[in-house]
Amino acid sequence: MARRKKVYEGKAKILYEGPEPGTLIQYFKDDSAPTAAEPKPAAVDGKGVLNNRLSEFFMSGLNAIGVPTHFIRRVNMREQMVRMAEIIPLEVVVRNFAAGELSARLGIPEGMALPRPIVEYYYKDDRLNSPMVAEEHIVAFGWANQQDLDDMVALALRVNDFMSGVMLGVGVRLADFRLEMGRIWEGDFMRLIVADEITPDSCRLWDLRAMTEREGQPAADAVPLADVYTELARRLGVLPSNVTHTTKPTLIN
Amino acid sequence: MARRKKVYEGKAKILYEGPEPGTLIQYFKDDSAPTAAEPKPAAVDGKGVLNNRLSEFFMSGLNAIGVPTHFIRRVNMREQMVRMAEIIPLEVVVRNFAAGELSARLGIPEGMALPRPIVEYYYKDDRLNSPMVAEEHIVAFGWANQQDLDDMVALALRVNDFMSGVMLGVGVRLADFRLEMGRIWEGDFMRLIVADEITPDSCRLWDLRAMTEREGQPAADAVPLADVYTELARRLGVLPSNVTHTTKPTLIN
Repeated sequence: MARRKKVYEGKAKILYEGPEPGTLIQYFKDDSAPTAAEPKPAAVDGKGVLNNRLSEFFMSGLNAIGVPTHFIRRVNMREQMVRMAEIIPLEVVVRNFAAGELSARLGIPEGMALPRPIVEYYYKDDRLNSPMVAEEHIVAFGWANQQDLDDMVALALRVNDFMSGVMLGVGVRLADFRLEMGRIWEGDFMRLIVADEITPDSCRLWDLRAMTEREGQPAADAVPLADVYTELARRLGVLPSNVTHTTKPTLIN
Repeated sequence: MARRKKVYEGKAKILYEGPEPGTLIQYFKDDSAPTAAEPKPAAVDGKGVLNNRLSEFFMSGLNAIGVPTHFIRRVNMREQMVRMAEIIPLEVVVRNFAAGELSARLGIPEGMALPRPIVEYYYKDDRLNSPMVAEEHIVAFGWANQQDLDDMVALALRVNDFMSGVMLGVGVRLADFRLEMGRIWEGDFMRLIVADEITPDSCRLWDLRAMTEREGQPAADAVPLADVYTELARRLGVLPSNVTHTTKPTLIN
């Protein structure tokens, strides 16, 4: 294979120049980006293969109902072709149930249903640990304008409706998730699309089947989906048979 | 049990007065309403039990993401408590793929993906066989005003995003579905809610797993989900164990 030009390399993914203008190849690694909860995550053998499949599954489903995403098609086990977009430097987080940073900051018990889905923005900057920002900051610093923000909320809530449905269908609660979005131009017309990935790395998933078995306990007892990459791919029927046995976290082996 | 007052009886459901003001009890029968395709549908033993569960599953999922529905809680095997609403006399149909009346009227092959979800209205009147109407008729005859219609489209598209997700999660394509909506008042504030039912009787469901097995054939070869009530309840994990063996269509027995 001819040597490809690397456009960007992050902890969990690599972007290469795509075969056609306006496209990129997105490569999924087995490594994960560090988070506040897990500053030095171990690589999970086979994770990249499953995330490539899962992001394909979710994004092609979104494309099919008219929610625009960057996903074009899967190329091989670890790579997919995506549209090149001008990435907005924000993580858009949609929360249905209290957890993580929201619980910590506002003292809301983990697992509590929120009165309605809450959309938050975090400024994408690893050195700053992606701090939360308000619309005021976003507009003032020119990361997005008010029209973009209105469109971003609408897009994020459509993704939430769809993804909540997918997950509920397979007995999983979508507590929260984060999206990245980008701008593409079609002539003079700009539109926002969902970019990056939709995978267990960007979603907080609780196992409703396990939670039902524990009935009688307080609703706040959220049960994380165990062995999340394999189990989700299995429930959704997108587990490639040849990676079934290579997806255990390496730290267990 | 004290004799309850019957409020309405249709082919597939009965409505009784509810135990609290503003509520009704919705009873699911095994009979189905006639359609153009099936003018004299046979009763399906156990269908009402499964539809009671399935409508509970979908509507409580919608309630949880902030899409308001009439569903309050399931009461027993065939009954659920719902909010009393002023029903708008329209069936709101959302189509993702061409089928049925749309294919017939516009000559679009069954199974073809539509350019975007299309929302249609049918005037609810069995004697007239529920004819399609345009917004022009609806506003002129006072069935709903323009604001209602805007809200109905927004509500219908949210339900479509969620239900498309639920179905995709279990390997089913949601080709189209119909909703009924109603108005409820909270003080002076009116809002629209999803009423009636969401079940295989109101959804056209194709089996993506079966369609994938037939790969290579034209995409238009839609495969209806076989034994639809049982199979859908099984895939979604809401099959009550004690009705597993009573759900075969009676015409097969």
